[in-house]
Amino acid sequence: MVAREKMLACTHVLHAFAPFKPADLFAKLAQSDYAQLPSDVYGAGGASDLVVERLKELFGTSGARFCIKGMIAQMAALRAAVERQGNNLVAIHRMTHFDIDEMEAVEILHPIQFRRLGTAYQPFTVDDLDKMGEVPGVVSVELPVRRAGYKLTPLEELVKISNWCRERGVHFHLDGARVFGVAEAYGKSLKEIMALCDSLYCSFYKELANIGGCGLLADEEFLAESDVWFTRHGANVPFEFPQAITALIGLDEFLPRIGEFTAFAKALAAAFNKIDGVRTVPLVPETPNFQVHIEAPKAALEAAFEKQIEADKVWLSGHALPTIYDEVQAIEVAIGAGSMSLSVEEWANYLSQSVGTARNEIEV
Amino acid sequence: MVAREKMLACTHVLHAFAPFKPADLFAKLAQSDYAQLPSDVYGAGGASDLVVERLKELFGTSGARFCIKGMIAQMAALRAAVERQGNNLVAIHRMTHFDIDEMEAVEILHPIQFRRLGTAYQPFTVDDLDKMGEVPGVVSVELPVRRAGYKLTPLEELVKISNWCRERGVHFHLDGARVFGVAEAYGKSLKEIMALCDSLYCSFYKELANIGGCGLLADEEFLAESDVWFTRHGANVPFEFPQAITALIGLDEFLPRIGEFTAFAKALAAAFNKIDGVRTVPLVPETPNFQVHIEAPKAALEAAFEKQIEADKVWLSGHALPTIYDEVQAIEVAIGAGSMSLSVEEWANYLSQSVGTARNEIEV
Repeated sequence: MVAREKMLACTHVLHAFAPFKPADLFAKLAQSDYAQLPSDVYGAGGASDLVVERLKELFGTSGARFCIKGMIAQMAALRAAVERQGNNLVAIHRMTHFDIDEMEAVEILHPIQFRRLGTAYQPFTVDDLDKMGEVPGVVSVELPVRRAGYKLTPLEELVKISNWCRERGVHFHLDGARVFGVAEAYGKSLKEIMALCDSLYCSFYKELANIGGCGLLADEEFLAESDVWFTRHGANVPFEFPQAITALIGLDEFLPRIGEFTAFAKALAAAFNKIDGVRTVPLVPETPNFQVHIEAPKAALEAAFEKQIEADKVWLSGHALPTIYDEVQAIEVAIGAGSMSLSVEEWANYLSQSVGTARNEIEV
Repeated sequence: MVAREKMLACTHVLHAFAPFKPADLFAKLAQSDYAQLPSDVYGAGGASDLVVERLKELFGTSGARFCIKGMIAQMAALRAAVERQGNNLVAIHRMTHFDIDEMEAVEILHPIQFRRLGTAYQPFTVDDLDKMGEVPGVVSVELPVRRAGYKLTPLEELVKISNWCRERGVHFHLDGARVFGVAEAYGKSLKEIMALCDSLYCSFYKELANIGGCGLLADEEFLAESDVWFTRHGANVPFEFPQAITALIGLDEFLPRIGEFTAFAKALAAAFNKIDGVRTVPLVPETPNFQVHIEAPKAALEAAFEKQIEADKVWLSGHALPTIYDEVQAIEVAIGAGSMSLSVEEWANYLSQSVGTARNEIEV
């Protein structure tokens, strides 16, 4: 693992969260029209209200809520849903981010019982729901499933799952952390995706590159029921305007560029797949996110990345994740405006160099 | 209740949370030396690390954590403490802020059982602990108890409570939302207060006027045990530098002025107490916070405040709280740099006018 601080000295970073100098961001924000609005007070007024209006318009819902932390919004939504349903069984994908990356927070903090469906590699299907043998109170689908290699439930399957829930009176929640790229992949509007579910969480700090915050979309009645859970989880911070203003800028500047980000991801993956010992997952990315699997020992690969970071000031990755093959390591790629500072060919050349270095080191 | 938006047009606001224009704050922040540091990444690096260093230095602890929301920090501390103790009984004051103002969040989200001590009007004493008849895992003291009229546990009593806990192996937690003013009131250093307890929460957005965020102080070992609870509660936000940088500015600019704020609060309360039908609680404030009790009907008082807000652009309060006397209403005063924009005499004159208007309206 390469020390994160080394990212600061890099001129090009293939990563959604490149550190930056707060002073530069503040200077930009001071010029924003949104910063001329008064501050919110505990999330009411100013930019926060505007985010809510924009979200309702984009997703066609009667209600929307802005929240500084996604984990809180999803816990509030799941808890409100199980309380409404009178059924605490929640069907999720086995690799669901809010389960495996947050230390079982949901089940530990709430009287919720997860039923973990599918394999570690593909989204679950309506068949998996049929096979459950019981009817859950809530079905949650992550789009795409990050920890299953950014695999996206096909639209046709999503519609089937939606219908399955409707027929049984099950609350259907979408974990749409990356829903803006997903809408592009489906060729559908955000309203059309929203129409399939009862509640949807979207994140502003993935494709839209803001400094934090998320939206919870649902009808007004459901949001009113979730309100008490937002409060109990500490969502009512005195001021949320820094996150709200950058969310508005993200919607203005980056939402129109999602197609561009996806096209870049596809071209980048195609170029990466030509490198010996490299293949991407998905083979053809559907959204701006994908994994790169590299046949090289972990230590050699990370050392090669570090060498490149120091010599060329280019950051491809600082950390290799395990795959099912001991000899294959994975890195994650998230395309946004920042990661497009080099051309596809330039990034592919840098990756090729790092992989070459790592693989030559094996032979030594 | 006066609409909060009307505060925006006021030139003088007797309130800790006067809305402001984010653009002005961003322009100021862009000039701060702290904004020249790189951003944090999920709370690591940049201004966040610096807040932690400053906190450890001020409180003399081996560990400190910065967190964007106080409710999360206190829940993490209480849960880690009961897990360590193997005893889920937590003794608190009956009017404890994190209990009564957060919809019983702690007991609903955690397997914690509160034992609510004392009356609604005074801090509890070591005698109340003796009378419990059982030994709790944790004792938590709020300094001062806001919902009991900002009454402060006398230092001598606090020492007794600390000893009581030490003798029985009970974890002693201090809810020090306003600990900077409390240290001034006790004439003790923050280190001396910290030495009495096992964990302490301090807020940056009371006397120190930052935009949000808090500190949890304890030894490194306890903080390591609380870490998983911070994560489960969603404390790991991608960037916390806006809150961290304003916290550092608050420590630099406002911490040295706490004595001045307290003296102003005392002088203001003395002047307010000369007004017919007005008395403050405490009669002599010990910290920069106090309540003002006004003998006037709620509707007439709020109407009088609203009239003054519109005519003079002066905001004393927008909302009257009930007291035990139907004919007496309470407002809260928190002195900080913002609320010192008028002299004691000027504020007292404005209050006298509003109270006069409200009380004359009774006679009509």
